[in-house]
Amino acid sequence: MKRPLNLDPDRLLPAEPGARSVARALYEEVRALPIVSPHGHTDPDWFATDAAWTNPADLLLAPDHYLYRMLYSQGVSLEALGVPSKAGPSAADPRAAWRLFASHYHLFRGTPSRLWLDHVFAEVFGLDVRLDAATADHYFDRITEALATSAFRPRALFDRFGIEWLATTEGAQDDLDHHAAIRASGWGGQVITTYRPDAVVDPEHEDFAAALARFGDLTGEDVHSWPGYLAAHRKRRADFRAAGATATDHGHPTALTGDLPQAEKEALFARVVGGGWTKDDAELFRAQMLTEMAAMSVEDGMVMQIHPGAFRNHNRWLHEAYGRDKGADIPARTDYVRALKPLLERFGNEPGLSIILFTLDESSYARELAPLAGHYPCLKLGPAWWFHDSPEGMRRFREMTTETAGFYNTVGFNDDTRAFLSIPARHDVARRVDCAFLARLVTEHRIEDWEAAELARELSYDLAKRAYRLDEPRAQAA
Amino acid sequence: MKRPLNLDPDRLLPAEPGARSVARALYEEVRALPIVSPHGHTDPDWFATDAAWTNPADLLLAPDHYLYRMLYSQGVSLEALGVPSKAGPSAADPRAAWRLFASHYHLFRGTPSRLWLDHVFAEVFGLDVRLDAATADHYFDRITEALATSAFRPRALFDRFGIEWLATTEGAQDDLDHHAAIRASGWGGQVITTYRPDAVVDPEHEDFAAALARFGDLTGEDVHSWPGYLAAHRKRRADFRAAGATATDHGHPTALTGDLPQAEKEALFARVVGGGWTKDDAELFRAQMLTEMAAMSVEDGMVMQIHPGAFRNHNRWLHEAYGRDKGADIPARTDYVRALKPLLERFGNEPGLSIILFTLDESSYARELAPLAGHYPCLKLGPAWWFHDSPEGMRRFREMTTETAGFYNTVGFNDDTRAFLSIPARHDVARRVDCAFLARLVTEHRIEDWEAAELARELSYDLAKRAYRLDEPRAQAA
Amino acid sequence: MKRPLNLDPDRLLPAEPGARSVARALYEEVRALPIVSPHGHTDPDWFATDAAWTNPADLLLAPDHYLYRMLYSQGVSLEALGVPSKAGPSAADPRAAWRLFASHYHLFRGTPSRLWLDHVFAEVFGLDVRLDAATADHYFDRITEALATSAFRPRALFDRFGIEWLATTEGAQDDLDHHAAIRASGWGGQVITTYRPDAVVDPEHEDFAAALARFGDLTGEDVHSWPGYLAAHRKRRADFRAAGATATDHGHPTALTGDLPQAEKEALFARVVGGGWTKDDAELFRAQMLTEMAAMSVEDGMVMQIHPGAFRNHNRWLHEAYGRDKGADIPARTDYVRALKPLLERFGNEPGLSIILFTLDESSYARELAPLAGHYPCLKLGPAWWFHDSPEGMRRFREMTTETAGFYNTVGFNDDTRAFLSIPARHDVARRVDCAFLARLVTEHRIEDWEAAELARELSYDLAKRAYRLDEPRAQAA
Repeated sequence: MKRPLNLDPDRLLPAEPGARSVARALYEEVRALPIVSPHGHTDPDWFATDAAWTNPADLLLAPDHYLYRMLYSQGVSLEALGVPSKAGPSAADPRAAWRLFASHYHLFRGTPSRLWLDHVFAEVFGLDVRLDAATADHYFDRITEALATSAFRPRALFDRFGIEWLATTEGAQDDLDHHAAIRASGWGGQVITTYRPDAVVDPEHEDFAAALARFGDLTGEDVHSWPGYLAAHRKRRADFRAAGATATDHGHPTALTGDLPQAEKEALFARVVGGGWTKDDAELFRAQMLTEMAAMSVEDGMVMQIHPGAFRNHNRWLHEAYGRDKGADIPARTDYVRALKPLLERFGNEPGLSIILFTLDESSYARELAPLAGHYPCLKLGPAWWFHDSPEGMRRFREMTTETAGFYNTVGFNDDTRAFLSIPARHDVARRVDCAFLARLVTEHRIEDWEAAELARELSYDLAKRAYRLDEPRAQAA
Repeated sequence: MKRPLNLDPDRLLPAEPGARSVARALYEEVRALPIVSPHGHTDPDWFATDAAWTNPADLLLAPDHYLYRMLYSQGVSLEALGVPSKAGPSAADPRAAWRLFASHYHLFRGTPSRLWLDHVFAEVFGLDVRLDAATADHYFDRITEALATSAFRPRALFDRFGIEWLATTEGAQDDLDHHAAIRASGWGGQVITTYRPDAVVDPEHEDFAAALARFGDLTGEDVHSWPGYLAAHRKRRADFRAAGATATDHGHPTALTGDLPQAEKEALFARVVGGGWTKDDAELFRAQMLTEMAAMSVEDGMVMQIHPGAFRNHNRWLHEAYGRDKGADIPARTDYVRALKPLLERFGNEPGLSIILFTLDESSYARELAPLAGHYPCLKLGPAWWFHDSPEGMRRFREMTTETAGFYNTVGFNDDTRAFLSIPARHDVARRVDCAFLARLVTEHRIEDWEAAELARELSYDLAKRAYRLDEPRAQAA
Repeated sequence: MKRPLNLDPDRLLPAEPGARSVARALYEEVRALPIVSPHGHTDPDWFATDAAWTNPADLLLAPDHYLYRMLYSQGVSLEALGVPSKAGPSAADPRAAWRLFASHYHLFRGTPSRLWLDHVFAEVFGLDVRLDAATADHYFDRITEALATSAFRPRALFDRFGIEWLATTEGAQDDLDHHAAIRASGWGGQVITTYRPDAVVDPEHEDFAAALARFGDLTGEDVHSWPGYLAAHRKRRADFRAAGATATDHGHPTALTGDLPQAEKEALFARVVGGGWTKDDAELFRAQMLTEMAAMSVEDGMVMQIHPGAFRNHNRWLHEAYGRDKGADIPARTDYVRALKPLLERFGNEPGLSIILFTLDESSYARELAPLAGHYPCLKLGPAWWFHDSPEGMRRFREMTTETAGFYNTVGFNDDTRAFLSIPARHDVARRVDCAFLARLVTEHRIEDWEAAELARELSYDLAKRAYRLDEPRAQAA
């Protein structure tokens, strides 16, 4: 039996009729606002070459660790799902992989992946039956056909999705050729980069040595000397700004920052590049580098994003067989109050500095992050992140941060995704959940309806542009 | 004034009429499903002898630390409530103890104990006025009379409650005679045991030496040698499986696991049985034994339950006067991400292994446990436990785990109780709270109504049978 | 455009009509109950002199760190807001400061400050348009005029607000002259003090040496000897009781308690007053002093409040320029289970002792604090505190503590404020949020409506009087 696929126009809005009607009115005003996506991981090559994608398994399943982590947890092998390993591409037939996924689609009930995918199926591809074992082939064929048409090329979808700004993320060792190609192509899509220097900042990163060498080549600096290493960062930050970047991003195991005396910094750096470092050295170097990056942000105005708290590659076997980013990263408790103090002692009251904090530890929302952002002029709160980028997660974010930090110390939504086709779905979920929260405040007479309307627009569009300085001349010129 | 006691048919369902109507429909379909109780602490002697209970104070009050801990917190003495101490049975008259309890029954407003007890009073005993000082004697008399009748014997209630499976918990040093007597009696009730070796695994357990000696006697192994000690575990696990066990259970202070080299394991064991161990040794030995138990589960297919995080016997005076399990256990923060890594490095990707994780630290639900269970094939999440086995606690469990782990990495409900008469009440609360959560997802158009109906049945019945392997031939043969 | 300011009579009550109607009925019965404010920080000099306040900037803005911390977080200088620094009073014109505040009032959308202020504006001053840049002068003029009238003097407002008891907080080194003046004046307002010895207990307090010297002068004891120091505490506690105090208060960085042998206590004290102490000594001394204070509470019956977990003066520059209590205190994770054990081993089962615990770490509500308060006779839970004294914060407090600790191990509401004019607003918010929570329990058939009515009164009035022993003869005689 084929089940119809209908996206209810009131999905994610509160069930209670009074609140639903308020939420619906708020949502109608922000539903069609342009998408500002200031933090994500799409591949700039898509927009540089505008080449067609091929089939749903390769496009939607094999690259999405949200999906195959859930199937893996229920005993399905990554090989059978088409996920490439370190040994090379999977031998799985894409159609077979898609059928396997379809037959397990019930596992996603109650998850955000289900909401995003159903949105992609219905809105992007116009499918009108639900995905399950019986409709797997229908889906595979319809999506494959669509992808072969010009309307489903990356740039066409970018326009159709109403994306005003899209930031990708590149490493300090990246040559930014894709971004150069996008600009050279004459296409008008505003795709910009973000400076993420983790691989040259984290001695424990598996690519550290290679990335550092490349970092030296690209900049012509002696990156094995402390002054040369800092100069190389400054040069690359300028390169990234020339490719439109307004922000940097830092994905560290913890939020620790440091502020060592000059001699200790240099001695630590010598150990780090000389190879004689310990785990404590690695942590301290990452900590010190957050403060160095803040110092450069004070100089060059780049917004700084800190994404701490994931224990990466928790499953050693999987990491060895399949590599990074395969759904085996697990959040851990994260301290901010002591960790950020060294950086804040240096720059916490600096007018031009803006640091956006993320967390995977929701217990820090009300206890640490909202009080920090509700005091320090340089701090703002990034949206609910990763495992918490979901209806319940976003609701908890608002419930636990708003009363202390207000709405204006938050920065709107980040989709943070590699899954380009899901970007409209993710922004739609965020807009609906924010409107639902605002509707509760209105129906409980905690704010007025006209205030909620202003806030809905801020949360959906304006805050992201301001927080990432996309409303400033430098960004517009990019 | 006597207040009527009515259990509202819509209790615990959402107040909003639309959601309530969805929840009610879901609940109606699962209300009468058989009870699967795969983890609990009822006394198997009740079912072996089928002897009558005597009065409500001895049956409902004196053994229930949920009840007397609350009264104790408000200054009522345990002696007056009939709780036995190490010095012997309480001298309190049962009727006087019951009156004392009844006159403090308002203390339980808003607690799950109140919900469970009112269900027992109304549904099991047919009482129709509320318990308070004025009705204490009426309650005492009615319940005492009922207990004297054959309809209130343990086996009769087991049948009346619709229990399909009931697991008790016995120590590695237990002879399992009660379970043998149940099987020998010809009674058809499926009462099985669970292997809980804490007393022979935890050097800090007050019965460690005696339990270890008994463990050796029962198995004929030299339990003071490492190979003999492991062989004894294997023998007893086989004994327990013969008494129907499909699972083991491990109640450790923390979730720490270990994976020491062979020589270090043996040296550690020598210290543990030789008496020269430190607190760190004790923790490390418990940690290593979780990994050894996982190794045996890979061999014999027993499902492993880990229940960490209680600081046992926090009140030293009470512990010395009254002993263990007297309501003075307090949860503490619990780490899983680092603690489980040694075990997961060994067995995390093992197809046959199933480990069910519990927590008393709700901050780990979304941050650690859901991401772990949403990735590792061997991990599933036990339901909200102990202090959190309550309407708000269960709701938070679903809200904080579903989006990352889905429903299918959870295992249905555990009543975890010594209070046999409350088992239907506890399952009923769990079914209602789950239906309420599902109804919210339906009314917010996050799942379809037919999916909610499937899930309600899974959460109420099927998941528990599958997770505890009660649907497999081995279990059926027990 | 001037926006009307109307306080909706149903504000903060649930949106769902059935629950709202139950909540409204509950609220109507407690709305006008007298205010018991057993913990706060108003200035007793106001009630001693009954002098008029001057203008809204000096009265409402410059002393309220909830307000200027939010503006500071958005780049507004404290100087411009009229906040005095260590260099002296701000040079800002009060009207200009008020205009600056008014033009940023939208920052408070969704915060409790907004609820409290709108209540003050509408109910205390009768303003009927909303505060914004356009109405700033109107507000400034109307409020300034009102403050010049006798109806807005402190004692007149005290009476108008229906305050039955108001506790202020004074240090051990305070001479209590204001309280003596209040009593000598013949005015009938029940304004009492609270014994807060932090400055003479915490070697890291910036005023430790001076406070200790003053402590010695006031008591005539040799406060540099351990027996003299303890005797001084006893004398001052008696002084405070004579000024109406029924409680002590302890604001420590952590909840650590200690129970050292006599010789170690004396050696530690010698280091603390001798100046050779370390940070660990300071922490241990504070810990030991909590236990000493509990010992004295067993003797003299004073209720003990523990307020741990704030990292004070996190912003070093701000602390150096502006001093303490300037909105730069940030909560940190707080442990109670191990921290309180030394004190509880000594006094946990003591019948006369009452300790009220507060937290800024909500993750401890369900995990630690409710289980502790639901067992130990000496422990009760203070209400949601500081950053959590807000609609969402209070709701989470009830949702996470009630099921384990019940309502009767909590102590009603504390407004904890320096902002005298906001006291009715804060109690009104608490009463509404509690009635909303109770209404949910009623509509979900978890308690009866008559029970909710009893509880609403307990939470609004009775519990606070009993918990702080304001219903006992000693308090009445003050």
